[in-house]
Amino acid sequence: MMSNTDPCRRCVILCAGEISPEAMERAAVRQEDLLIAADGGYLHAQRFGLRPQLVVGDFDSAPPPPPGSDVETFPVEKDDTDCMLAAREGIARGCREFVILGGTGGRLDHTLANIQTLAWLWQQGARGKLLDREHDILVLGPGRWEFPRHEGYLSLFALGDQTVVSEEGVYYPLERHPLTCSFPLGVSNQITAPRASITVHAGLAICILYYH
Amino acid sequence: MMSNTDPCRRCVILCAGEISPEAMERAAVRQEDLLIAADGGYLHAQRFGLRPQLVVGDFDSAPPPPPGSDVETFPVEKDDTDCMLAAREGIARGCREFVILGGTGGRLDHTLANIQTLAWLWQQGARGKLLDREHDILVLGPGRWEFPRHEGYLSLFALGDQTVVSEEGVYYPLERHPLTCSFPLGVSNQITAPRASITVHAGLAICILYYH
Repeated sequence: MMSNTDPCRRCVILCAGEISPEAMERAAVRQEDLLIAADGGYLHAQRFGLRPQLVVGDFDSAPPPPPGSDVETFPVEKDDTDCMLAAREGIARGCREFVILGGTGGRLDHTLANIQTLAWLWQQGARGKLLDREHDILVLGPGRWEFPRHEGYLSLFALGDQTVVSEEGVYYPLERHPLTCSFPLGVSNQITAPRASITVHAGLAICILYYH
Repeated sequence: MMSNTDPCRRCVILCAGEISPEAMERAAVRQEDLLIAADGGYLHAQRFGLRPQLVVGDFDSAPPPPPGSDVETFPVEKDDTDCMLAAREGIARGCREFVILGGTGGRLDHTLANIQTLAWLWQQGARGKLLDREHDILVLGPGRWEFPRHEGYLSLFALGDQTVVSEEGVYYPLERHPLTCSFPLGVSNQITAPRASITVHAGLAICILYYH
């Protein structure tokens, strides 16, 4: 059993949105992960036979979990979303790698809020992604990443006003090109090489892998 | 019959995503609107018994419309999405008010691209919104807007790094408060007064009305 403050521990957050078996399989939840259910996400945990170590949320839209869970509840009036609460807990417990399931589908405002939570995680020195049946959604700051070829699309969007990216191994390559929030230049690219390389030179980028 | 360059004419764009009868009803398409089908959106037009004046797109994911339509086709390799092509045509024909249907649902990269298209429209001096069954999605620049109370939520998100907003007549009011791309402070507000007032003091904000 790994300690609660192991800095290498991964945090898996289950939110109340849609969670498909495909996304759960890609997440490959492990015994040693810190598993947090955010509000109604604990119903997903039950459905998939998972036992979260922690359940956070205000339970304004789902019944609270039964006694015996390590449940933290928060007042309804707060600035944090349930997913943000869970992300804070994961950071406080030393996690620097986050996977969020159930953070998309349904309300688009929740999806955008959860993408901003990925940006918040980046600012904490952590890395996170949202997984659903058809998408991996990441926020990338300065650095270089590789993605293996897949059937589907790779899209990049500016998050903020400073985003400059390069893309190699893709159908529409870019070389130190600015992305803006008002023109979707980076949408619907395709990986043509065995691996695509994304370099963020400045700012933050939303990276979406769409699987056919 | 209004002329093609009437500056007051509204432009309704039908994209290939999901279009619900509820969204179509809220759009209230009128005879005098400039109706543009973007690629597979023309199948929606047929389904709803609408006759678009213009069909644009590369028809990479849907068969081209039958002969006799005023169809403009574009090569597949281009920087514009089908929705951007349609928005450009609307601007070129003098429209300054845009309603986009079928721009959400399915691929999240398409949804984000279409939100950025709303920002592009703002920069052209036009106003646009994406409608689906449960959401009105707007991009708002500096100015003041009112929204009547509804059952559901009102959310604001920063689009770029300069966003400063005020919110009145809502459960969590804000007074000249900055919004950032890395913290979802403005998510899940509720309108408590008969009308909410949103003021954007600087930058651009994504405004999402969610209907229960």
